[in-house]
Order: sequence, then C-alpha cells, then structure tokens
Amino acid sequence: MRIIIIGGVAAGTSAAAKAKRENSDSEIILFEKGKDISYAGCGLPYYISGITSRDQIVINTPEEFQKKYNIEVKTSHKVTKILPDSKQIIYENQKKSNKIKYDKLIIATGASPIIPPIPGINLNHILPLRTLKNAVNIKNIIENKNPQNITIVGAGLIGLEMAEAFYELNLNITIIEKMSQVLPTFSRDMAQIVKNHLLDKNIDLYLNEEVTEFVGDKNNNLKSVKTKSGKNIDSDLTLISTGIKPNTDLASQAGVKTGNSGAVAVNEKMETSIPDIFAAGDCAQSTNLITNKPVWFPLGSTANKQGRIAGENAAGGSNNHKGILKTAITKIFDLTVAKTGISVEEAEKNEIDPVTTKITAANHAGYYPELEKINLKGVFNKDNGEIIGAEIIGKDGVDKRIDVLSTAIYSKLTAHDLFQVDLAYAPPYSSPKDPAAILGMVTSKKL
Amino acid sequence: MRIIIIGGVAAGTSAAAKAKRENSDSEIILFEKGKDISYAGCGLPYYISGITSRDQIVINTPEEFQKKYNIEVKTSHKVTKILPDSKQIIYENQKKSNKIKYDKLIIATGASPIIPPIPGINLNHILPLRTLKNAVNIKNIIENKNPQNITIVGAGLIGLEMAEAFYELNLNITIIEKMSQVLPTFSRDMAQIVKNHLLDKNIDLYLNEEVTEFVGDKNNNLKSVKTKSGKNIDSDLTLISTGIKPNTDLASQAGVKTGNSGAVAVNEKMETSIPDIFAAGDCAQSTNLITNKPVWFPLGSTANKQGRIAGENAAGGSNNHKGILKTAITKIFDLTVAKTGISVEEAEKNEIDPVTTKITAANHAGYYPELEKINLKGVFNKDNGEIIGAEIIGKDGVDKRIDVLSTAIYSKLTAHDLFQVDLAYAPPYSSPKDPAAILGMVTSKKL
Repeated sequence: MRIIIIGGVAAGTSAAAKAKRENSDSEIILFEKGKDISYAGCGLPYYISGITSRDQIVINTPEEFQKKYNIEVKTSHKVTKILPDSKQIIYENQKKSNKIKYDKLIIATGASPIIPPIPGINLNHILPLRTLKNAVNIKNIIENKNPQNITIVGAGLIGLEMAEAFYELNLNITIIEKMSQVLPTFSRDMAQIVKNHLLDKNIDLYLNEEVTEFVGDKNNNLKSVKTKSGKNIDSDLTLISTGIKPNTDLASQAGVKTGNSGAVAVNEKMETSIPDIFAAGDCAQSTNLITNKPVWFPLGSTANKQGRIAGENAAGGSNNHKGILKTAITKIFDLTVAKTGISVEEAEKNEIDPVTTKITAANHAGYYPELEKINLKGVFNKDNGEIIGAEIIGKDGVDKRIDVLSTAIYSKLTAHDLFQVDLAYAPPYSSPKDPAAILGMVTSKKL
Repeated sequence: MRIIIIGGVAAGTSAAAKAKRENSDSEIILFEKGKDISYAGCGLPYYISGITSRDQIVINTPEEFQKKYNIEVKTSHKVTKILPDSKQIIYENQKKSNKIKYDKLIIATGASPIIPPIPGINLNHILPLRTLKNAVNIKNIIENKNPQNITIVGAGLIGLEMAEAFYELNLNITIIEKMSQVLPTFSRDMAQIVKNHLLDKNIDLYLNEEVTEFVGDKNNNLKSVKTKSGKNIDSDLTLISTGIKPNTDLASQAGVKTGNSGAVAVNEKMETSIPDIFAAGDCAQSTNLITNKPVWFPLGSTANKQGRIAGENAAGGSNNHKGILKTAITKIFDLTVAKTGISVEEAEKNEIDPVTTKITAANHAGYYPELEKINLKGVFNKDNGEIIGAEIIGKDGVDKRIDVLSTAIYSKLTAHDLFQVDLAYAPPYSSPKDPAAILGMVTSKKL
C-alpha cells in the first residue's frame, strides 16, 4: 500500500509519521514543494526575535525525518495535479513532470497569506510571515539592511506577536489596522486592554486606518507607507499580516469539495468528498463543537491532530477528530491573551441566547507575591447554563484558566458546574475560589 | 430568623457572609472560641517564612467582618453544648455560661492536629501548625529563641511546605517520617522525585523512622529528638505534622451522626442528620465524585464551598455541593506537586479495573526558553476509558495540567477525549500536543 502526502509541515509530517506507525509495511511518500519540512510555524516570531534558533525551529530536516520514520521525503517536488479516477498525482521536480500512483492520498497543502493588492506591494522588504523562508528573509533584512522603522499591517495575533519580536530587536513599530480595534475576534472591551498595553510600549497604533500605497526608492526598496487618512509613515520593512487563505487549488481541480469557508470539507475521519483522499491541517475545515457547524480555524495544534487522524485512517486504522473550539492563545509583550468557544455575536447567529459575565480576579492568593489580576469574560447559554465561550487577558495564570474553560466547554459544563469542579488550591497557584469558579458563581445568579 | 454559626475560619465565615447575602433580614451570630476569625490557614507557612505578613493573612478582623457583613461576631466564646430538642446552644465567655436559641445552626468547628503521645511531647518548642496562634507561636520562637535545628515529624503536605519555610529562614532541617516514602498519598515513584529534591536541598530526611522521645533541658525546652533506630538529633524546635482529626465532639454529643471517617455526615445541601443543623468545612465529610462514597479530605477550597452552600441553604436558599476529587497542590521548594482523583489502590478497593500511564512531557515548546519537564501519571478506568486520577510533579505548568485533569475527571472524560479537547497552544504555553493530550493518546492504545 502506498500513501502519498502532499505538504510537509505540521499536518503532513504528523500524518506521515502516524501512518507509518499504524502500518509499517506501507510505503509513505511525502511531497513538499519547498525545501523545508517539519518546522514549527508558531515559533517563527521567536526565531526572528532571536529567542530561539533556526535549528531549534526545524524539528526534523528532510534527511532526519526520512531516516527516523522510514518515509520517503521529496522536497522541491511540486504536485501539480491530482487524478482521482486513476488514483495518481502529477508532480514537477527540476522542471520535469512525472506521475505516480497512490492507494491513499492525504492533502495537507496548508494556507497562504492574503496579500492585499495595494500599489507598491511588490517592492522589496514587504513580506508576510507564514513560512520558514519568509522568516529567514525577514531576519536577513534585519541583519543586513539595518531597518529602523517597521510597519505592521493587521493587528491580529500574528501582527501583535511580531510587534513583540520587533520590539525585542529595538525597532520602531507602527501598526495599521483597518478595523476599529486590535484583535478583531475579541470583544471590544477586552481588546482595549491589549490596545492600552501596546500604547504603554510606545507602539504607534493606528486603528480605522488603511494602507493606500507603498512608496519605494530608486532601488525598489520600501521607503514609506501612505495611508487613507493622509499619513506618510517612514518604513524600511513592512509585515503583511492581514489574514490567510486555505490552499485548495489542487483539491478543487480534482473535484474535492470545499465548504463555505473555502477550505476542504472533511468528515470526522478527515475523509474528503472523494474516496481514498483525505485532507488535514490548515487547508481543511473542522467542526465547531458548540454549533456543530463546519468551521475553518487553522492552527498548529489542530493541524497536528488532524494530520495524525488522517494518517492513522489512511493506513487502515480508525480514529476521529471531533472538532474544535477555536481556542487560541498568544503572548503580546507582558500579556497573555486567550480565547475559546464562541462570542456573543456568534451565539446570536446560531440562535443561542447568550449571557455574558465579566470579572476581574486574582491569579492566586492575595498575600502571595506576584499577584496579578486576570480579566475574564465568559459567554453562557441562557437556556441550559452551559459555558460556550471565554476570553481571558492578563499575566500569570491566564493559560491555566483558558484550558480549564476549554475543557469545561468541551464537556458541556454549566455555570453551576464551574463552581463545583474541585480545582487545585494552594496560595501560590490560586485562591480558595478560583477565577473559573467565581465566573460560574456570578453567572449562576443570572440564570 | 436567627442563624448561629459555630466556628469562624474558612467555612464559618463563608457561611455567615453568604447567609446574610441570601437573607439580609436574618440575624447571623458567629461564635468562635479563639480570638481570630477569617484567616487564611493555607497561608500560615508563608507568614512564618516572612513571604507575607500577619495582617495580610488575616482577611478580616472580627471587627471588620462584623461591620462589613452586618454579622454579630463573638470571639472567645466557646460553644459547649448543642441542644437540638429546644434548638439552643450553650456557650461560655469569661467563665460565664449562657444559652441562646437558633432557628438554623451551622457547625463549622474545623479540625485539630493529632498530637502523638510520645514521651516529652509537652516540652516547650514542640508545636503543630494549624491555627494562626500556632503560627504566631512558631514565629515568636524563631525570632526570640534563635533556634538552629528544626525537626519536622511527618512528611505530608504541611510538613514539606514547612520544610521550605524553615529553609527560607536558613535553619537546619531534619524530617522524620514513619512511612517508607514522603507524601504517603502519592505513588512511590512520584514521591521519589520529591525525596530527591529534598535531598538536593540538603534536608536530612529519615524514612521508616519514628520519634521515641523528646528530650528537654532543665528549663523544659526541647533539646533533642530520640528515634527508634537509635538516633539522637539535636533539635531546638519540632513541628508536629502527623495529621489532623475532625472536631466533632459538639456534634456527636448532640446526636449528630458522623460517618466512617469520623467527620460529620452531611448530604449535598450540607444538612446533618438532625433537622436545622448544617455542617461545613474541615469537620464535615464530602462525597468522592468518582466512587460516590463519603470522604473526609479537609481543605480550604472545599471549606469555602461547603460553608457557602450551608449558609445559603440555612438562610432559605437552595444550593448543593456535589462533592470532591481530593484535588491537592503544594509548592515544595522548586517543585509543584499535585494530585487529583483516586489512586490505583483506591480504584481496586472500589472494584474499578485501573490502567495507569506515566509520561514525561514538556511544559511548552522545546525551543522556547525555560523549558521544564512535567512528570505525569494518570489512572484510568479500563472498562470505560474514563480518567479517574492523576499525579503531577514538576515546575512550571503543573498547576495548569492538574486543573485541566480535575475538570476532565469531574466531566467523566475518557482518554480519547483528552486527545480531543481543544487546549490552547502557543510556544510559551504548551506544545502542539499538550501533556494532557499525550496522556490521553498513550492511554488510548492500552484500552
């Protein structure tokens, strides 16, 4: 049995490794159009800031991966077509085209940055951050071109993570965001906390603002950024972080169905609409565990799980991925910013009557050193009291509470349950009433 | 309506405050035999080590509490008898005895240290640590008597927390434990990690050892500790941390039923066997959420919850406390040591076929600074795959995983569910596969 995997980052390598473990007799071939595989995409900002190295970000080189898992790795091999009827793929390498048959195919083609069609976008020193190659390019520019003024277009998670990275490198940072708040998926009042923190760090932040033109010098190097409101901001380097889109051209051409999100539609087994073709990772949809509707929310942790499931099932096993809560967390300077589940607006769209509770609670006992306040907003279903969403912003202890609440949402716990759960208490770690319990208690009164 | 509460620490003050909020017309009287109320018992080691102050440990003085909640607080008032037939209590103050009627009574009499009947136990400078008064006494001895050599009898949670406190004060510490391991409620291999850490800190640790005599000087001050194996250990101060027992004399004399544990038997509403009498906190039992059997496991977080429920119900409300998982956490020098649910032995006693999985996993992404290994042991029910217990020892990130697993056990999640839960991933906080997910994955293969 031959299993072919297209794409060699998180989902692709997870799928390959798991398929081989599931069925050691199978032949596994991994096609990757780029030169790198198996690198930690989420670690790229930390590579750029110098917190970690390229070698540490690359979990396995192609050679290491091939040897470690006994999998054939074909880098710089671009798959150009899937032929489902004859169960073949066509690929290109060094300008030569070839065909190969598969028994099972896993599409793990990932996602690509959305590059807005702004005049001057093709100037030098305007880059997204998606691939290791992007990161190496950004780092090279910083090391060799001595940029001083950085503009970040888009104040989502990647944009703000990169603001921290550039800040660590002592660069002047301007952030331009089209929406009226940073982190557009967060509630306005919660996003305000992050905004104030960015201003405390002397970041120039422009909301309700758009780039209208990138201006270059005679060498086609970026010089400044012009905006809708008439600003002309000196800029030696611009990061484009305005979102990503799933890479579905190959799948679509082959007749594999995509969902409303544009990503490949899959079932719990990661099977697509065409037999023997699976999809996993950033190119594929998942299921929203609260609404039970398809959702596209590409993240490394989900890519790992989906890849693993796809690999196991392709190799003859049987496993499933139930879905996601769109749980996300990020470090933005000194803050930890996290979200899970659905928002009030999403609840209303799905005909759920939402109740929200906002509290501020201590990370641990008040008399223990390094006391920090945690800002916590929970969304509950008024009909049955179940928690369906949460946003948490603060310092120490935020990551703990988002994981407790993610587990609670997965488990369909109610506000009353949050009070009941026997969370661990000792002064360095929590208070006798943990923030999650307080959230439940306060909400219970409203239900 | 008059609600009388006996005992003014965690459960008693929680009950009083909640009863008043539930029914502001009720008259609430709190009787406390000591001088202090409303102090953080779990903070006492940190008060002794100097990390925090007496004022910070005392959440409310009697006067503050009285004023803040409009509750009558009677300190130095010892309740000597409960008369359920006439719904009265008898109390003593300044050697005078009085009676008062109650409509509802809440017993929150707490627990007391078990003082082993060892020759010399009544010498000066041999103390338990249970009350604020105990802590003040220990601190006074340290400040005024200049002790150098400290012996701790009993290597449970309090004994080891106090080892850290004494260590912070640059004292020489010997720990004597009767059992063959520290932390007798933990698995042997997990306890070994803590033992090695204590040895790294140059603590003299004697396991399988017992004190046979406390030797005093001519002023009746402790001088040394003799042991079963023939040692005579110089000792200026000894902490007795050999366990506690529930204070049930008052309840028992009144005919209130106690359970097998010796603590007061209560239902979910914190009602005792006698109408209009409630019990809460360290004197009362709870329900083990896994075995559904009564359990006595006194902790501040449970006392808070039970007190709150008792107060609410006594005042005419309706709430319940479902039970506990015996979740416990403590900081022992640089380690965080935590446990939730039941052990293999407890599972077997309850006719559950246990499967255990032990893993070592990273607290966060390998390339992010301050990488730490977390030791995690999970116990699962082989029949249905549900997680029923966990022990976790490590540094950063232990408290998060114990709370995720406590929530998972409460929710009856299976090993497969632990893989599915959408936990938050970013390099500073976790890995694409969180330790909890790895625990589930590894266990799934055995089921």
